[in-house]
Amino acid sequence: MSPTLHSYLEEKTLYIEKHLQGLLEREGVPGSLYESMAYSLMAGGKRLRPMLVLAVLEALDKPLERGIPYAAALEMIHTYSLIHDDLPAMDDDDLRRGKPTNHKVYGEATAILAGDALLTRAFGLIAEAYSNHPEVKPETVVSLIAELAKRAGARGMVGGQMADIEGEGKQLSLEELEYIHRHKTGDLLIAALIGGGYLAEATESQMAALARYGRMIGLAFQIQDDILNVEGDAVQLGKAVGSDADRKKATYPSLLGMDESKQRLLQLVSDAKGVLRDVGLGNSALIPLADYVIERKK
Amino acid sequence: MSPTLHSYLEEKTLYIEKHLQGLLEREGVPGSLYESMAYSLMAGGKRLRPMLVLAVLEALDKPLERGIPYAAALEMIHTYSLIHDDLPAMDDDDLRRGKPTNHKVYGEATAILAGDALLTRAFGLIAEAYSNHPEVKPETVVSLIAELAKRAGARGMVGGQMADIEGEGKQLSLEELEYIHRHKTGDLLIAALIGGGYLAEATESQMAALARYGRMIGLAFQIQDDILNVEGDAVQLGKAVGSDADRKKATYPSLLGMDESKQRLLQLVSDAKGVLRDVGLGNSALIPLADYVIERKK
Repeated sequence: MSPTLHSYLEEKTLYIEKHLQGLLEREGVPGSLYESMAYSLMAGGKRLRPMLVLAVLEALDKPLERGIPYAAALEMIHTYSLIHDDLPAMDDDDLRRGKPTNHKVYGEATAILAGDALLTRAFGLIAEAYSNHPEVKPETVVSLIAELAKRAGARGMVGGQMADIEGEGKQLSLEELEYIHRHKTGDLLIAALIGGGYLAEATESQMAALARYGRMIGLAFQIQDDILNVEGDAVQLGKAVGSDADRKKATYPSLLGMDESKQRLLQLVSDAKGVLRDVGLGNSALIPLADYVIERKK
Repeated sequence: MSPTLHSYLEEKTLYIEKHLQGLLEREGVPGSLYESMAYSLMAGGKRLRPMLVLAVLEALDKPLERGIPYAAALEMIHTYSLIHDDLPAMDDDDLRRGKPTNHKVYGEATAILAGDALLTRAFGLIAEAYSNHPEVKPETVVSLIAELAKRAGARGMVGGQMADIEGEGKQLSLEELEYIHRHKTGDLLIAALIGGGYLAEATESQMAALARYGRMIGLAFQIQDDILNVEGDAVQLGKAVGSDADRKKATYPSLLGMDESKQRLLQLVSDAKGVLRDVGLGNSALIPLADYVIERKK
Protein backbone atom coordinates (compact mmCIF):
# COMPACT_ATOMS: atom_id res chain seq x y z
CA MET A 1 0.00 0.00 0.00
CA SER A 2 1.32 3.46 -0.87
CA PRO A 3 2.12 5.77 2.07
CA THR A 4 -0.40 8.29 0.67
CA LEU A 5 -3.24 5.74 0.63
CA HIS A 6 -2.21 4.50 4.04
CA SER A 7 -2.41 7.96 5.60
CA TYR A 8 -5.63 8.70 3.69
CA LEU A 9 -7.28 5.58 5.10
CA GLU A 10 -6.03 6.36 8.57
CA GLU A 11 -7.26 9.93 8.54
CA LYS A 12 -10.68 9.01 7.17
CA THR A 13 -11.06 6.09 9.59
CA LEU A 14 -10.41 8.45 12.50
CA TYR A 15 -12.91 10.95 11.12
CA ILE A 16 -15.57 8.27 10.74
CA GLU A 17 -14.97 6.66 14.12
CA LYS A 18 -15.05 10.04 15.84
CA HIS A 19 -18.70 10.36 14.83
CA LEU A 20 -19.87 6.77 14.82
CA GLN A 21 -20.56 5.88 18.43
CA GLY A 22 -22.18 9.23 19.18
CA LEU A 23 -24.81 8.49 16.56
CA LEU A 24 -26.16 5.52 18.49
CA GLU A 25 -29.02 6.36 20.82
CA ARG A 26 -28.07 5.93 24.45
CA GLU A 27 -30.68 7.61 26.63
CA GLY A 28 -33.55 5.31 27.46
CA VAL A 29 -31.75 2.27 26.03
CA PRO A 30 -31.20 -0.71 28.37
CA GLY A 31 -27.49 -0.66 29.28
CA SER A 32 -26.64 -4.14 28.08
CA LEU A 33 -28.30 -3.51 24.72
CA TYR A 34 -26.37 -0.28 24.20
CA GLU A 35 -23.10 -1.95 25.18
CA SER A 36 -23.65 -4.84 22.83
CA MET A 37 -24.44 -2.48 19.94
CA ALA A 38 -21.41 -0.29 20.66
CA TYR A 39 -19.11 -3.29 21.12
CA SER A 40 -19.59 -4.48 17.55
CA LEU A 41 -19.95 -1.05 15.98
CA MET A 42 -16.65 0.12 17.50
CA ALA A 43 -14.75 -3.16 16.99
CA GLY A 44 -12.64 -1.70 14.21
CA GLY A 45 -12.87 -2.96 10.68
CA LYS A 46 -12.02 -1.33 7.42
CA ARG A 47 -14.91 1.17 7.40
CA LEU A 48 -14.93 0.68 3.65
CA ARG A 49 -18.59 1.62 3.11
CA PRO A 50 -18.37 4.95 4.99
CA MET A 51 -15.04 5.58 3.24
CA LEU A 52 -16.71 5.23 -0.16
CA VAL A 53 -19.45 7.72 0.76
CA LEU A 54 -16.86 10.28 1.83
CA ALA A 55 -14.72 9.64 -1.25
CA VAL A 56 -17.67 10.37 -3.56
CA LEU A 57 -18.41 13.65 -1.76
CA GLU A 58 -14.73 14.58 -1.92
CA ALA A 59 -14.52 13.68 -5.61
CA LEU A 60 -17.37 16.07 -6.33
CA ASP A 61 -16.07 18.86 -4.06
CA LYS A 62 -18.83 18.61 -1.49
CA PRO A 63 -18.39 18.92 2.30
CA LEU A 64 -17.63 15.55 3.89
CA GLU A 65 -19.81 16.13 6.94
CA ARG A 66 -22.84 15.86 4.69
CA GLY A 67 -21.99 12.19 4.28
CA ILE A 68 -21.65 11.32 7.96
CA PRO A 69 -25.22 10.25 8.84
CA TYR A 70 -25.56 8.09 5.74
CA ALA A 71 -22.04 6.68 6.15
CA ALA A 72 -22.77 5.81 9.78
CA ALA A 73 -26.07 4.19 8.79
CA LEU A 74 -24.23 1.99 6.27
CA GLU A 75 -21.72 0.94 8.90
CA MET A 76 -24.54 0.12 11.34
CA ILE A 77 -26.19 -2.10 8.73
CA HIS A 78 -22.89 -3.76 7.88
CA THR A 79 -22.28 -4.34 11.60
CA TYR A 80 -25.75 -5.80 12.25
CA SER A 81 -25.25 -8.19 9.33
CA LEU A 82 -21.97 -9.42 10.82
CA ILE A 83 -23.56 -9.93 14.27
CA HIS A 84 -26.42 -11.98 12.82
CA ASP A 85 -24.15 -13.89 10.39
CA ASP A 86 -21.90 -14.95 13.26
CA LEU A 87 -24.78 -16.47 15.29
CA PRO A 88 -24.70 -20.21 16.04
CA ALA A 89 -27.72 -20.77 13.76
CA MET A 90 -25.85 -19.08 10.90
CA ASP A 91 -22.04 -19.27 10.43
CA ASP A 92 -21.38 -20.00 14.12
CA ASP A 93 -18.20 -17.93 14.35
CA ASP A 94 -16.42 -17.26 17.63
CA LEU A 95 -13.99 -14.64 16.39
CA ARG A 96 -14.46 -11.46 14.38
CA ARG A 97 -11.79 -8.84 13.83
CA GLY A 98 -9.65 -10.59 16.39
CA LYS A 99 -12.27 -10.29 19.13
CA PRO A 100 -14.93 -12.66 20.44
CA THR A 101 -18.12 -12.33 18.40
CA ASN A 102 -21.07 -10.45 19.86
CA HIS A 103 -23.06 -13.48 21.02
CA LYS A 104 -19.93 -14.93 22.67
CA VAL A 105 -19.75 -11.84 24.87
CA TYR A 106 -23.41 -10.86 25.37
CA GLY A 107 -25.32 -14.06 24.64
CA GLU A 108 -27.48 -14.95 21.69
CA ALA A 109 -30.65 -13.13 22.67
CA THR A 110 -28.84 -9.82 23.16
CA ALA A 111 -26.88 -10.30 19.94
CA ILE A 112 -30.07 -10.81 17.94
CA LEU A 113 -31.64 -7.71 19.50
CA ALA A 114 -28.48 -5.62 19.07
CA GLY A 115 -28.54 -6.48 15.37
CA ASP A 116 -32.23 -5.59 15.11
CA ALA A 117 -31.63 -2.30 16.92
CA LEU A 118 -28.64 -1.33 14.73
CA LEU A 119 -30.66 -2.01 11.58
CA THR A 120 -33.57 0.07 12.88
CA ARG A 121 -31.27 2.88 14.01
CA ALA A 122 -29.67 3.09 10.57
CA PHE A 123 -32.95 4.16 8.99
CA GLY A 124 -33.93 6.36 11.92
CA LEU A 125 -30.59 8.14 11.81
CA ILE A 126 -30.92 9.04 8.14
CA ALA A 127 -34.49 10.25 8.67
CA GLU A 128 -33.55 12.35 11.71
CA ALA A 129 -30.08 13.70 11.02
CA TYR A 130 -30.66 15.42 7.71
CA SER A 131 -33.13 17.85 9.25
CA ASN A 132 -29.93 19.62 10.39
CA HIS A 133 -28.64 19.72 6.79
CA PRO A 134 -30.88 22.18 4.90
CA GLU A 135 -28.83 21.55 1.74
CA VAL A 136 -30.11 17.95 1.70
CA LYS A 137 -33.72 17.97 0.54
CA PRO A 138 -36.35 15.64 2.03
CA GLU A 139 -36.69 14.06 -1.45
CA THR A 140 -33.00 13.12 -1.24
CA VAL A 141 -33.45 11.64 2.23
CA VAL A 142 -36.31 9.50 0.94
CA SER A 143 -34.13 8.35 -2.00
CA LEU A 144 -31.28 7.42 0.36
CA ILE A 145 -33.62 5.30 2.50
CA ALA A 146 -35.23 3.61 -0.51
CA GLU A 147 -31.80 2.80 -1.99
CA LEU A 148 -30.42 1.48 1.28
CA ALA A 149 -33.48 -0.67 2.02
CA LYS A 150 -33.40 -2.15 -1.48
CA ARG A 151 -29.71 -3.04 -1.29
CA ALA A 152 -29.80 -4.29 2.31
CA GLY A 153 -33.03 -6.30 2.12
CA ALA A 154 -34.47 -9.50 0.67
CA ARG A 155 -33.43 -8.64 -2.89
CA GLY A 156 -30.02 -7.48 -1.70
CA MET A 157 -27.73 -8.32 1.19
CA VAL A 158 -30.17 -10.49 3.16
CA GLY A 159 -31.04 -12.40 -0.03
CA GLY A 160 -27.33 -12.96 -0.68
CA GLN A 161 -26.83 -14.31 2.82
CA MET A 162 -29.84 -16.63 2.37
CA ALA A 163 -28.43 -17.98 -0.91
CA ASP A 164 -25.03 -18.38 0.74
CA ILE A 165 -26.48 -20.50 3.55
CA GLU A 166 -28.52 -22.60 1.12
CA GLY A 167 -25.45 -23.13 -1.03
CA GLU A 168 -23.26 -24.49 1.77
CA GLY A 169 -22.03 -28.00 1.07
CA LYS A 170 -23.41 -27.87 -2.47
CA GLN A 171 -21.48 -27.75 -5.74
CA LEU A 172 -22.24 -24.23 -6.97
CA SER A 173 -21.80 -22.91 -10.47
CA LEU A 174 -19.82 -19.71 -10.99
CA GLU A 175 -23.12 -18.00 -11.77
CA GLU A 176 -24.60 -19.04 -8.44
CA LEU A 177 -21.46 -17.95 -6.63
CA GLU A 178 -21.61 -14.54 -8.29
CA TYR A 179 -25.28 -14.14 -7.35
CA ILE A 180 -24.36 -14.69 -3.72
CA HIS A 181 -21.49 -12.25 -3.72
CA ARG A 182 -23.16 -9.62 -5.84
CA HIS A 183 -25.82 -9.38 -3.17
CA LYS A 184 -24.11 -10.39 0.05
CA THR A 185 -21.16 -8.01 -0.37
CA GLY A 186 -21.65 -5.98 -3.52
CA ASP A 187 -25.06 -4.44 -2.89
CA LEU A 188 -24.07 -2.51 0.22
CA LEU A 189 -20.97 -1.15 -1.52
CA ILE A 190 -23.19 0.00 -4.38
CA ALA A 191 -25.55 1.61 -1.85
CA ALA A 192 -22.57 3.53 -0.45
CA LEU A 193 -21.62 4.83 -3.89
CA ILE A 194 -25.13 5.63 -5.12
CA GLY A 195 -26.07 7.26 -1.83
CA GLY A 196 -22.85 9.27 -1.94
CA GLY A 197 -23.81 10.25 -5.48
CA TYR A 198 -27.24 11.47 -4.34
CA LEU A 199 -25.68 13.52 -1.55
CA ALA A 200 -23.00 14.95 -3.85
CA GLU A 201 -25.52 15.77 -6.58
CA ALA A 202 -23.70 13.61 -9.14
CA THR A 203 -24.80 13.76 -12.78
CA GLU A 204 -26.70 10.86 -14.30
CA SER A 205 -23.64 9.47 -16.08
CA GLN A 206 -21.59 9.78 -12.91
CA MET A 207 -24.30 7.88 -10.99
CA ALA A 208 -24.22 5.08 -13.55
CA ALA A 209 -20.42 4.96 -13.38
CA LEU A 210 -20.45 4.86 -9.58
CA ALA A 211 -22.85 1.92 -9.65
CA ARG A 212 -20.70 0.03 -12.18
CA TYR A 213 -17.53 0.77 -10.23
CA GLY A 214 -19.31 -0.48 -7.11
CA ARG A 215 -20.36 -3.71 -8.73
CA MET A 216 -16.82 -4.38 -9.95
CA ILE A 217 -14.98 -3.61 -6.74
CA GLY A 218 -17.64 -5.56 -4.84
CA LEU A 219 -16.84 -8.66 -6.83
CA ALA A 220 -13.09 -7.98 -6.57
CA PHE A 221 -13.49 -7.57 -2.82
CA GLN A 222 -15.07 -10.98 -2.53
CA ILE A 223 -12.47 -12.69 -4.72
CA GLN A 224 -9.76 -11.15 -2.53
CA ASP A 225 -11.65 -12.41 0.56
CA ASP A 226 -11.64 -15.91 -0.88
CA ILE A 227 -7.93 -15.66 -1.71
CA LEU A 228 -7.09 -14.41 1.78
CA ASN A 229 -9.02 -17.34 3.25
CA VAL A 230 -6.47 -19.58 1.49
CA GLU A 231 -3.27 -17.53 1.54
CA GLY A 232 -3.88 -14.97 4.29
CA ASP A 233 -2.51 -14.70 7.77
CA ALA A 234 -4.94 -15.54 10.59
CA VAL A 235 -3.43 -12.98 12.96
CA GLN A 236 -3.65 -10.13 10.45
CA LEU A 237 -7.12 -11.20 9.35
CA GLY A 238 -8.41 -11.55 12.89
CA LYS A 239 -10.23 -14.71 11.89
CA ALA A 240 -9.41 -18.29 10.93
CA VAL A 241 -8.00 -19.13 7.50
CA GLY A 242 -8.77 -22.30 5.59
CA SER A 243 -12.33 -22.27 6.96
CA ASP A 244 -13.90 -22.14 3.48
CA ALA A 245 -12.11 -25.34 2.44
CA ASP A 246 -13.01 -27.01 5.74
CA ARG A 247 -16.67 -26.20 5.11
CA LYS A 248 -16.36 -27.27 1.45
CA LYS A 249 -17.62 -23.80 0.58
CA ALA A 250 -17.61 -22.81 -3.09
CA THR A 251 -15.09 -20.00 -3.65
CA TYR A 252 -13.40 -18.36 -6.63
CA PRO A 253 -10.11 -20.23 -6.10
CA SER A 254 -11.99 -23.54 -5.78
CA LEU A 255 -14.01 -22.92 -8.95
CA LEU A 256 -11.51 -21.05 -11.15
CA GLY A 257 -8.15 -21.94 -9.62
CA MET A 258 -5.87 -19.49 -7.87
CA ASP A 259 -4.14 -18.03 -10.95
CA GLU A 260 -7.33 -17.34 -12.85
CA SER A 261 -8.88 -15.81 -9.69
CA LYS A 262 -5.97 -13.42 -9.31
CA GLN A 263 -6.12 -12.46 -12.97
CA ARG A 264 -9.84 -11.76 -12.75
CA LEU A 265 -9.23 -9.62 -9.68
CA LEU A 266 -6.71 -7.43 -11.53
CA GLN A 267 -9.01 -7.08 -14.51
CA LEU A 268 -11.98 -6.03 -12.38
CA VAL A 269 -10.01 -3.37 -10.55
CA SER A 270 -8.53 -2.04 -13.76
CA ASP A 271 -11.98 -1.88 -15.40
CA ALA A 272 -13.48 -0.20 -12.32
CA LYS A 273 -10.88 2.56 -12.49
CA GLY A 274 -11.45 2.99 -16.23
CA VAL A 275 -15.18 3.51 -15.69
CA LEU A 276 -14.50 6.37 -13.28
CA ARG A 277 -11.91 8.02 -15.52
CA ASP A 278 -14.51 8.13 -18.31
CA VAL A 279 -16.75 10.41 -16.23
CA GLY A 280 -14.06 12.74 -14.92
CA LEU A 281 -13.53 11.05 -11.55
CA GLY A 282 -10.05 9.75 -12.34
CA ASN A 283 -8.29 12.02 -9.88
CA SER A 284 -10.34 11.05 -6.86
CA ALA A 285 -9.53 8.81 -3.92
CA LEU A 286 -11.88 6.25 -5.47
CA ILE A 287 -8.98 5.19 -7.71
CA PRO A 288 -6.52 4.17 -4.94
CA LEU A 289 -9.48 2.75 -2.99
CA ALA A 290 -10.02 0.28 -5.83
CA ASP A 291 -6.37 -0.80 -5.55
CA TYR A 292 -6.80 -1.12 -1.80
CA VAL A 293 -9.37 -3.86 -2.36
CA ILE A 294 -6.60 -6.03 -3.84
CA GLU A 295 -3.74 -4.92 -1.68
CA ARG A 296 -5.40 -5.35 1.68
CA LYS A 297 -4.20 -8.17 3.86
CA LYS A 298 -7.28 -8.25 6.09
CA MET B 1 -68.25 -7.60 21.02
CA SER B 2 -71.01 -5.62 19.30
CA PRO B 3 -72.09 -6.85 15.84
CA THR B 4 -71.11 -3.43 14.42
CA LEU B 5 -67.55 -3.66 15.75
CA HIS B 6 -67.31 -7.24 14.64
CA SER B 7 -68.21 -6.44 11.05
CA TYR B 8 -66.00 -3.33 11.13
CA LEU B 9 -62.99 -5.42 12.18
CA GLU B 10 -63.77 -8.06 9.59
CA GLU B 11 -64.12 -5.59 6.75
CA LYS B 12 -60.92 -3.73 7.65
CA THR B 13 -58.95 -6.95 8.15
CA LEU B 14 -59.94 -8.06 4.65
CA TYR B 15 -58.96 -4.67 3.24
CA ILE B 16 -55.57 -4.80 4.94
CA GLU B 17 -54.81 -8.40 4.05
CA LYS B 18 -55.78 -7.78 0.42
CA HIS B 19 -52.81 -5.41 0.15
CA LEU B 20 -50.34 -6.90 2.58
CA GLN B 21 -48.66 -9.78 0.77
CA GLY B 22 -48.41 -7.84 -2.51
CA LEU B 23 -46.25 -5.27 -0.75
CA LEU B 24 -43.49 -7.78 -0.08
CA GLU B 25 -40.81 -7.87 -2.75
CA ARG B 26 -40.81 -11.18 -4.61
CA GLU B 27 -38.72 -10.81 -7.77
CA GLY B 28 -35.07 -11.53 -7.14
CA VAL B 29 -35.74 -12.87 -3.64
CA PRO B 30 -34.60 -16.44 -2.86
CA GLY B 31 -37.77 -18.56 -2.79
CA SER B 32 -37.37 -19.92 0.71
CA LEU B 33 -36.77 -16.44 2.12
CA TYR B 34 -39.88 -15.07 0.45
CA GLU B 35 -41.97 -18.01 1.66
CA SER B 36 -40.77 -17.64 5.20
CA MET B 37 -41.56 -13.90 5.20
CA ALA B 38 -45.01 -14.45 3.69
CA TYR B 39 -45.78 -17.35 6.04
CA SER B 40 -45.56 -15.19 9.14
CA LEU B 41 -46.91 -12.01 7.57
CA MET B 42 -50.03 -13.80 6.35
CA ALA B 43 -50.53 -15.98 9.45
CA GLY B 44 -53.54 -13.96 10.58
CA GLY B 45 -53.49 -11.98 13.77
CA LYS B 46 -55.53 -9.02 14.86
CA ARG B 47 -53.94 -6.50 12.48
CA LEU B 48 -54.44 -3.99 15.27
CA ARG B 49 -51.64 -1.61 14.23
CA PRO B 50 -52.80 -1.26 10.60
CA MET B 51 -56.36 -0.96 11.92
CA LEU B 52 -55.38 2.02 14.07
CA VAL B 53 -53.74 3.80 11.10
CA LEU B 54 -56.88 3.38 9.02
CA ALA B 55 -59.13 4.43 11.91
CA VAL B 56 -57.22 7.72 12.31
CA LEU B 57 -57.52 8.48 8.59
CA GLU B 58 -61.22 7.63 8.70
CA ALA B 59 -61.75 9.78 11.80
CA LEU B 60 -60.30 12.75 9.95
CA ASP B 61 -62.14 12.08 6.68
CA LYS B 62 -59.09 11.16 4.65
CA PRO B 63 -58.89 8.35 2.05
CA LEU B 64 -57.94 5.04 3.65
CA GLU B 65 -55.62 3.99 0.83
CA ARG B 66 -53.23 6.69 1.92
CA GLY B 67 -52.60 4.65 5.04
CA ILE B 68 -51.85 1.34 3.36
CA PRO B 69 -48.05 1.53 2.89
CA TYR B 70 -47.48 2.77 6.43
CA ALA B 71 -49.99 0.29 7.88
CA ALA B 72 -48.30 -2.57 6.02
CA ALA B 73 -44.88 -1.41 7.22
CA LEU B 74 -46.12 -1.49 10.84
CA GLU B 75 -47.46 -5.00 10.38
CA MET B 76 -44.14 -6.11 8.85
CA ILE B 77 -42.27 -4.75 11.87
CA HIS B 78 -44.73 -6.35 14.28
CA THR B 79 -44.33 -9.65 12.40
CA TYR B 80 -40.52 -9.53 12.39
CA SER B 81 -40.56 -8.90 16.14
CA LEU B 82 -42.72 -11.98 16.70
CA ILE B 83 -40.45 -14.17 14.53
CA HIS B 84 -37.34 -13.09 16.44
CA ASP B 85 -39.07 -13.24 19.85
CA ASP B 86 -40.12 -16.83 19.19
CA LEU B 87 -36.54 -18.00 18.44
CA PRO B 88 -34.98 -20.63 20.73
CA ALA B 89 -32.48 -18.06 22.05
CA MET B 90 -35.37 -15.77 23.03
CA ASP B 91 -38.80 -17.05 24.17
CA ASP B 92 -38.38 -20.44 22.44
CA ASP B 93 -42.02 -20.75 21.35
CA ASP B 94 -43.27 -23.51 19.07
CA LEU B 95 -46.72 -22.13 18.43
CA ARG B 96 -47.97 -18.72 17.31
CA ARG B 97 -51.52 -17.93 16.23
CA GLY B 98 -52.25 -21.66 16.28
CA LYS B 99 -49.51 -22.46 13.77
CA PRO B 100 -45.92 -23.66 14.14
CA THR B 101 -43.57 -20.70 14.63
CA ASN B 102 -41.40 -19.55 11.73
CA HIS B 103 -38.20 -21.27 12.83
CA LYS B 104 -40.10 -24.52 13.43
CA VAL B 105 -41.08 -24.52 9.76
CA TYR B 106 -38.10 -22.90 8.03
CA GLY B 107 -35.25 -23.36 10.49
CA GLU B 108 -33.50 -20.80 12.66
CA ALA B 109 -31.21 -19.24 10.07
CA THR B 110 -34.05 -18.53 7.66
CA ALA B 111 -36.25 -17.21 10.49
CA ILE B 112 -33.55 -14.75 11.55
CA LEU B 113 -33.08 -13.58 7.96
CA ALA B 114 -36.84 -13.37 7.30
CA GLY B 115 -37.15 -11.09 10.33
CA ASP B 116 -34.25 -8.94 9.14
CA ALA B 117 -35.75 -8.71 5.66
CA LEU B 118 -39.23 -7.78 6.94
CA LEU B 119 -37.76 -5.02 9.09
CA THR B 120 -35.73 -3.67 6.18
CA ARG B 121 -38.69 -3.89 3.80
CA ALA B 122 -40.86 -1.88 6.19
CA PHE B 123 -38.65 1.18 5.81
CA GLY B 124 -38.10 0.61 2.09
CA LEU B 125 -41.83 0.32 1.49
CA ILE B 126 -42.59 3.66 3.15
CA ALA B 127 -39.76 5.35 1.23
CA GLU B 128 -40.88 3.89 -2.10
CA ALA B 129 -44.65 3.76 -1.99
CA TYR B 130 -45.44 7.37 -1.22
CA SER B 131 -43.92 8.54 -4.49
CA ASN B 132 -47.27 7.39 -5.92
CA HIS B 133 -49.15 9.58 -3.42
CA PRO B 134 -48.49 13.21 -4.41
CA GLU B 135 -50.69 14.36 -1.51
CA VAL B 136 -48.11 12.94 0.93
CA LYS B 137 -45.09 15.26 1.00
CA PRO B 138 -41.50 13.92 1.23
CA GLU B 139 -41.25 15.75 4.59
CA THR B 140 -44.14 13.62 5.86
CA VAL B 141 -42.49 10.44 4.59
CA VAL B 142 -39.31 11.36 6.48
CA SER B 143 -41.36 12.02 9.63
CA LEU B 144 -43.09 8.64 9.33
CA ILE B 145 -39.76 6.84 9.05
CA ALA B 146 -38.21 8.77 11.95
CA GLU B 147 -41.22 8.05 14.17
CA LEU B 148 -41.33 4.37 13.26
CA ALA B 149 -37.58 3.87 13.80
CA LYS B 150 -37.71 5.61 17.17
CA ARG B 151 -40.64 3.51 18.40
CA ALA B 152 -39.37 0.21 16.96
CA GLY B 153 -35.70 0.54 17.96
CA ALA B 154 -33.41 0.44 20.99
CA ARG B 155 -35.36 3.11 22.86
CA GLY B 156 -38.66 1.50 21.87
CA MET B 157 -39.83 -1.99 21.04
CA VAL B 158 -36.39 -3.66 20.92
CA GLY B 159 -35.45 -2.02 24.22
CA GLY B 160 -38.68 -3.33 25.75
CA GLN B 161 -37.92 -6.84 24.58
CA MET B 162 -34.40 -6.57 26.00
CA ALA B 163 -35.75 -5.45 29.39
CA ASP B 164 -38.32 -8.25 29.26
CA ILE B 165 -35.62 -10.89 28.72
CA GLU B 166 -33.43 -9.44 31.45
CA GLY B 167 -36.38 -9.37 33.82
CA GLU B 168 -37.26 -13.04 33.43
CA GLY B 169 -37.12 -14.95 36.68
CA LYS B 170 -36.60 -11.71 38.64
CA GLN B 171 -38.99 -10.02 41.04
CA LEU B 172 -39.94 -6.88 39.09
CA SER B 173 -41.52 -3.75 40.49
CA LEU B 174 -44.68 -2.40 38.86
CA GLU B 175 -42.55 0.42 37.46
CA GLU B 176 -40.16 -2.01 35.77
CA LEU B 177 -43.08 -4.00 34.41
CA GLU B 178 -44.62 -0.85 32.96
CA TYR B 179 -41.31 0.13 31.34
CA ILE B 180 -41.25 -3.21 29.58
CA HIS B 181 -44.79 -3.02 28.32
CA ARG B 182 -44.74 0.64 27.44
CA HIS B 183 -41.94 -0.13 25.02
CA LYS B 184 -42.47 -3.74 24.00
CA THR B 185 -46.11 -3.31 23.08
CA GLY B 186 -47.09 0.32 23.54
CA ASP B 187 -44.55 2.06 21.34
CA LEU B 188 -45.61 0.42 18.10
CA LEU B 189 -49.28 1.23 18.81
CA ILE B 190 -48.28 4.84 19.40
CA ALA B 191 -46.32 4.81 16.13
CA ALA B 192 -49.50 3.64 14.38
CA LEU B 193 -51.52 6.49 15.84
CA ILE B 194 -48.93 9.24 15.38
CA GLY B 195 -48.11 8.08 11.85
CA GLY B 196 -51.83 7.97 11.07
CA GLY B 197 -52.03 11.50 12.46
CA TYR B 198 -49.22 12.70 10.17
CA LEU B 199 -50.91 11.14 7.15
CA ALA B 200 -54.31 12.56 8.09
CA GLU B 201 -52.90 16.02 8.78
CA ALA B 202 -54.15 16.01 12.37
CA THR B 203 -53.93 19.21 14.43
CA GLU B 204 -51.35 19.48 17.16
CA SER B 205 -53.87 18.84 19.94
CA GLN B 206 -55.23 15.85 18.05
CA MET B 207 -51.69 14.48 17.67
CA ALA B 208 -51.12 14.80 21.42
CA ALA B 209 -54.45 13.10 22.13
CA LEU B 210 -53.68 10.25 19.72
CA ALA B 211 -50.35 9.65 21.47
CA ARG B 212 -52.00 9.62 24.93
CA TYR B 213 -54.76 7.33 23.71
CA GLY B 214 -52.08 5.04 22.26
CA ARG B 215 -50.15 4.91 25.49
CA MET B 216 -53.29 4.02 27.47
CA ILE B 217 -54.64 1.34 25.17
CA GLY B 218 -51.12 -0.06 24.85
CA LEU B 219 -50.98 -0.61 28.58
CA ALA B 220 -54.56 -1.92 28.62
CA PHE B 221 -53.66 -4.30 25.81
CA GLN B 222 -50.82 -5.75 27.82
CA ILE B 223 -52.88 -6.12 31.00
CA GLN B 224 -55.51 -7.98 28.97
CA ASP B 225 -52.74 -10.17 27.52
CA ASP B 226 -51.62 -11.05 31.03
CA ILE B 227 -55.21 -11.76 32.10
CA LEU B 228 -55.81 -13.98 29.07
CA ASN B 229 -52.64 -15.90 29.91
CA VAL B 230 -54.36 -16.84 33.18
CA GLU B 231 -58.06 -17.03 32.25
CA GLY B 232 -57.99 -17.41 28.47
CA ASP B 233 -58.68 -20.38 26.26
CA ALA B 234 -55.64 -21.96 24.59
CA VAL B 235 -57.58 -22.90 21.44
CA GLN B 236 -58.98 -19.41 20.94
CA LEU B 237 -55.63 -17.81 21.76
CA GLY B 238 -53.67 -20.10 19.48
CA LYS B 239 -50.98 -20.37 22.13
CA ALA B 240 -50.47 -21.94 25.54
CA VAL B 241 -52.04 -20.42 28.66
CA GLY B 242 -50.43 -20.43 32.08
CA SER B 243 -46.99 -20.02 30.49
CA ASP B 244 -46.29 -16.75 32.36
CA ALA B 245 -46.82 -18.46 35.73
CA ASP B 246 -44.71 -21.44 34.65
CA ARG B 247 -41.87 -19.08 33.78
CA LYS B 248 -42.42 -17.08 37.00
CA LYS B 249 -42.83 -14.05 34.78
CA ALA B 250 -43.93 -10.80 36.41
CA THR B 251 -47.42 -9.85 35.18
CA TYR B 252 -50.14 -7.42 36.23
CA PRO B 253 -52.24 -10.17 37.89
CA SER B 254 -49.18 -11.45 39.76
CA LEU B 255 -48.21 -7.97 40.99
CA LEU B 256 -51.63 -6.33 41.51
CA GLY B 257 -53.96 -9.30 41.82
CA MET B 258 -56.68 -10.15 39.30
CA ASP B 259 -59.39 -7.78 40.57
CA GLU B 260 -57.15 -4.73 40.69
CA SER B 261 -55.79 -5.60 37.22
CA LYS B 262 -59.28 -5.73 35.76
CA GLN B 263 -60.22 -2.46 37.40
CA ARG B 264 -57.13 -0.75 36.04
CA LEU B 265 -57.96 -2.09 32.60
CA LEU B 266 -61.43 -0.52 32.66
CA GLN B 267 -60.09 2.78 33.90
CA LEU B 268 -57.43 2.98 31.18
CA VAL B 269 -59.92 2.29 28.40
CA SER B 270 -62.39 4.80 29.79
CA ASP B 271 -59.66 7.47 30.07
CA ALA B 272 -58.40 6.71 26.56
CA LYS B 273 -61.86 7.31 25.14
CA GLY B 274 -62.23 10.53 27.12
CA VAL B 275 -59.00 11.91 25.69
CA LEU B 276 -60.28 11.44 22.15
CA ARG B 277 -63.70 12.94 22.90
CA ASP B 278 -61.93 16.09 24.12
CA VAL B 279 -60.44 16.71 20.66
CA GLY B 280 -63.54 15.93 18.61
CA LEU B 281 -62.70 12.34 17.76
CA GLY B 282 -65.47 10.83 19.91
CA ASN B 283 -67.48 9.54 16.98
CA SER B 284 -64.68 7.59 15.34
CA ALA B 285 -63.96 3.88 15.24
CA LEU B 286 -61.12 4.56 17.67
CA ILE B 287 -63.73 4.48 20.47
CA PRO B 288 -65.00 0.91 19.90
CA LEU B 289 -61.42 -0.13 19.10
CA ALA B 290 -60.48 0.82 22.65
CA ASP B 291 -63.27 -1.43 23.97
CA TYR B 292 -62.05 -4.20 21.69
CA VAL B 293 -58.75 -4.24 23.56
CA ILE B 294 -60.64 -5.45 26.66
CA GLU B 295 -63.26 -7.58 24.99
CA ARG B 296 -60.96 -9.62 22.80
CA LYS B 297 -60.47 -13.26 23.66
CA LYS B 298 -57.24 -13.69 21.67
